[in-house]
Amino acid sequence: MQFDMEALPPRDRYKILTSTVTPRPIAWVTSQSASGILNAAPFSFFNVMDDDPPVVVLGIMRHPENRPKDTGANIQETGEFVINLVTEDLADAMNITCMDAPPEVDELACAGLTPAPSIKVKPPRIAESPVNFECRTFRIVETAPHQMIVIGRVIMAHIRDDMILDPERCHIDTPRLRLIGRMHGSGWYARTSDLFELKRPRYADWAAAQQARQDG
Amino acid sequence: MQFDMEALPPRDRYKILTSTVTPRPIAWVTSQSASGILNAAPFSFFNVMDDDPPVVVLGIMRHPENRPKDTGANIQETGEFVINLVTEDLADAMNITCMDAPPEVDELACAGLTPAPSIKVKPPRIAESPVNFECRTFRIVETAPHQMIVIGRVIMAHIRDDMILDPERCHIDTPRLRLIGRMHGSGWYARTSDLFELKRPRYADWAAAQQARQDG
Repeated sequence: MQFDMEALPPRDRYKILTSTVTPRPIAWVTSQSASGILNAAPFSFFNVMDDDPPVVVLGIMRHPENRPKDTGANIQETGEFVINLVTEDLADAMNITCMDAPPEVDELACAGLTPAPSIKVKPPRIAESPVNFECRTFRIVETAPHQMIVIGRVIMAHIRDDMILDPERCHIDTPRLRLIGRMHGSGWYARTSDLFELKRPRYADWAAAQQARQDG
Repeated sequence: MQFDMEALPPRDRYKILTSTVTPRPIAWVTSQSASGILNAAPFSFFNVMDDDPPVVVLGIMRHPENRPKDTGANIQETGEFVINLVTEDLADAMNITCMDAPPEVDELACAGLTPAPSIKVKPPRIAESPVNFECRTFRIVETAPHQMIVIGRVIMAHIRDDMILDPERCHIDTPRLRLIGRMHGSGWYARTSDLFELKRPRYADWAAAQQARQDG
């Protein structure tokens, strides 16, 4: 079945894209307004894009009230943000930071989370998250009014000691992180518990095996 | 522990970013050169960014020989590509398209895959994949020479009938798709088999519960 994405309303395009492009990594972003008001919110329109320069992207859709979301406005104002990664244990706390709380409410405090100082940027990290990336804006691409793709340069990484297998070789214990990914609907997530490994084939080996099969 | 991403070599930054930003969705991209040579390759630097316009991003690092990768060069030349999503059943076939095959070798044929015509773009879809997005370039951001972030507008979606619960409401059976996500190292992947749901809390409910606990 075909869906003409140029003819469908945005709501249907959203359902098609978010129910198929899965699992999505989650950036739990802490940012501050120029006047210092702290914001925390999760985004699953997020990924790494490059290592040289080391950049990530965040897709920040417009606020339903047709203005930039707080995270987007803060990044436009200050050029700084922190990405905190989300483990299974932090799922409920992350979910509390999605509440429709009034602006004067501190979402991190509601969720029982602790801000910890960053080194190179002003917005704090979330101390309970085992991986935090301090980021500075590399480029902002506006895709529509009040809506943007933020390309951020990762300038500092914090990784909790017990998640590091070999600091010299930058070898991280990924399965132990037990990060979650975003799935479909308004609240489905996937655990990263069911893993498998594929060895990348060499063409010479593959061609030899094909030949042997033909020779029978 | 802290890693100064401005001081580390790219190889170490790559390890840190790809072993932590997980699980990543996979775009198995079919593209064609201006002269019509077909290419297929998987990318996990990929995600949805917006629904209005409906755009996705692909991070395409430079080829180790310091030129654009074939997929990047094709997209620069033609402005067209197709994203095919990867199920558990297609993992081995996808892996064969990662081989170091010489340019004259048809990777889809090696993997036993069937090209199927697209509707609005020239590059074919992979018939065996249950979800295909026909895309046209919206913007290309060069992050370094021969290296780019492609922002693609999704203009047509193909979804296999048995994965659709309600076509009118664009309701897709995501768990049934059994897509895989990219994890760490040179070949670790995650199945989307271990799912859970979180209900988004309403602030009024949460505040009332807090008050009751304090009064209690």
